Amino acid sequence: MSTSGASSGFASRLASAVQARRSQIVLGLDPDPARLWPQALEAASGSSAAEQAASAVEAHCNALIEAAGPACVVAKPQLACFERLGAPGRDALGAVVAHAKAAGLLVLADGKRGDIDVSAAAYSQSLAGVTETPFGPVAGLGADAFTANPYMGIDTLNALIEGARANDAGVFVLVRTSNPGAADFEDLEIADHGTLWERVAQAVDRLGSEGELSDVGAVVGATAPEYVARMRELMPRTIFLLPGIGAQGGSVEDLAPAFSPGRAAGLVSASRSIVFASEEHGGSPAEAARAQAELLRDSAWALGAEG
Amino acid sequence: MSTSGASSGFASRLASAVQARRSQIVLGLDPDPARLWPQALEAASGSSAAEQAASAVEAHCNALIEAAGPACVVAKPQLACFERLGAPGRDALGAVVAHAKAAGLLVLADGKRGDIDVSAAAYSQSLAGVTETPFGPVAGLGADAFTANPYMGIDTLNALIEGARANDAGVFVLVRTSNPGAADFEDLEIADHGTLWERVAQAVDRLGSEGELSDVGAVVGATAPEYVARMRELMPRTIFLLPGIGAQGGSVEDLAPAFSPGRAAGLVSASRSIVFASEEHGGSPAEAARAQAELLRDSAWALGAEG
Repeated sequence: MSTSGASSGFASRLASAVQARRSQIVLGLDPDPARLWPQALEAASGSSAAEQAASAVEAHCNALIEAAGPACVVAKPQLACFERLGAPGRDALGAVVAHAKAAGLLVLADGKRGDIDVSAAAYSQSLAGVTETPFGPVAGLGADAFTANPYMGIDTLNALIEGARANDAGVFVLVRTSNPGAADFEDLEIADHGTLWERVAQAVDRLGSEGELSDVGAVVGATAPEYVARMRELMPRTIFLLPGIGAQGGSVEDLAPAFSPGRAAGLVSASRSIVFASEEHGGSPAEAARAQAELLRDSAWALGAEG
Repeated sequence: MSTSGASSGFASRLASAVQARRSQIVLGLDPDPARLWPQALEAASGSSAAEQAASAVEAHCNALIEAAGPACVVAKPQLACFERLGAPGRDALGAVVAHAKAAGLLVLADGKRGDIDVSAAAYSQSLAGVTETPFGPVAGLGADAFTANPYMGIDTLNALIEGARANDAGVFVLVRTSNPGAADFEDLEIADHGTLWERVAQAVDRLGSEGELSDVGAVVGATAPEYVARMRELMPRTIFLLPGIGAQGGSVEDLAPAFSPGRAAGLVSASRSIVFASEEHGGSPAEAARAQAELLRDSAWALGAEG
C-alpha cells in the first residue's frame, strides 16, 4: 500500500516526504457534521440524511485538504467521525483517503485500535492491508499508518505491527496522550521503576524496525512538553506524533527535543486550530486554514534546523 | 436505543433477558471470510468481491444466530471483522445487528474504543446513539452496549459512558484481558498499591450507575480465573464479560465467583468453540453450534444457582 513506487518502509517514505514538502504538519480530519464549511453543505447529495451528511463531510475534508494540504505532509482522519455516518461514512472516508493521497499526502488512520491477535490482524487488513476472501481479495483503506492502543500488551501490538509491516505501513502507539485523563493510568508509577508510559515507550523502542527511524511511532501529547526529552531518551529512533497543539493548549516551541534525530521524527498534529482558523483570525475558512497551516509548518521547521 | 419498550438502563434490561432466556452466554460473531459455513457461501450476492464477501458474512452470522442464538442472551459482533470489508461490511454489520435483535438478543459491539472526549462522543454516537446533522439525525448501529479501552484515562471513559447512558446503553471496560500479553502492562505492580488492572477495576466500580447491577461492565479474561475472586471484591456490582472460554483455553467451572451477585453479573463469551463445534464434535455446523451453545449455557447456569 505504498503511496510511492519505492519498496521502502513507512519511515523512509515519511522522511522523504518531509524533506520534499518541507513540512512536519499532520492535518487532522475530524469532521463534525454540525460544523462543516459552508461550501461543503452546498455540495451535499444523496437520498438519506446519512448519505447527504457523508457527502458533505467528504466535500469538507477535500476542501480542507485543498486549502491546508500543501503546507502539510500527512492527513489524519479520525475514524470515529466517519463511522458515525454508517456505510456512507465509510465510502466518504475512502474517498477522502484517495483525495489526500492524490494531493501527495501520506495517510494516518486514527482509530487507536487494539485487540487480541486474530482481531488485531483483522484491523491491520482493514486499515492498511487486504482481506483474502473466496470471492477475491478485498482492499482495505490503504492507510500509510494507523494509531494503536497498547493496554492489552505486546502480543496485540505485534499483531498490528506485523500486519502493517507486510504492507510497508507504520503503527503509532499511544504512549503519553494529550488529554487530562492521561494522568490517571499512563502516569502511574510502577513498583520497580518508572511510569506506565515509560514502560510502553520501552516496548515501542524495542518493537520498531532497524534503521535511522523506526516504523513504530509514538503518540506523545504536546500538552506535556516536560516529558518530551525523557521520551526521546527512551525512544531515540521513534517518530513522535504530537497532538494537542492549538485547541488542546500545547505550543510548538516547547517541543524542540522531539525533532532531535531529524525533522521527520517529530510530526505536529493539528485539527481544530486549522479548520476553524477563520473564527479566530477572520478571512474565508480556506484562506485562514492555509495561513494557519503555513504558520505552524514554519514554526515547526525552524525548531528542527539542527535535524 | 432500548431493545425493549422499558425506560430502564442496560443493566436491568440485561438482567431481565438473562432470567427470561435462562442464559448468560454471549455469542461472539467474528466472521472470517475464509472460514464461513458452506450455506453462507452459497448465499453470496453482489457485483464486487467486497459485496459478495459481506453478503456471505451476513448470511453466516444470521445462520449462526438462528442456530445458537436461542441458547444465548447477547450477540457480540467483533467490529474489525466487518470493517475490513469496507462499506458493504458496515451494511452487513447493521443487518446482523438487526437480525440479532429480532431474535431477542441484546447486542454488544466489540470494538474496544477509546479516545479523547470529542472523539469518544463520536464513537458513542456511532455505536449506540444518533448523530445530529444539518440533513437530519443519523442513527448509529443501535448496540445495547460496547467495549472500551481505559488506557487514556477517566475523561475518555466518561465521554463513552455518558454517550452510552444517554441511550440506555452499557459500556464494558477492558480490565484484565484473556490474551498472554495481558501480563505486560495490565499486571504491572503500581508503586503504592496493587496492579494496573486493579486500578482500572476501581475506576470501573466508581464510574458505574447506582443499583443492584452497574451499567459499566468489565472485560475479565476467563484464562486467568485466579483473579476472578479479587475482581469481584473490587467490583461488587459490575457485570463481567468473560471471554477466553474454549478456544482460548479457559474453563467455565473456574469462574464461579463471577456469578456471585446474580447470574446476569457473569456473561460467558464464546465464539470459535461454538461456530466451529462441528469440526471437533461432528454433525452439521448449525446442529453442532446449537449443541455446544446449550452445553455452555447449562454449565454456566448451574454455577450461578445461588445467584
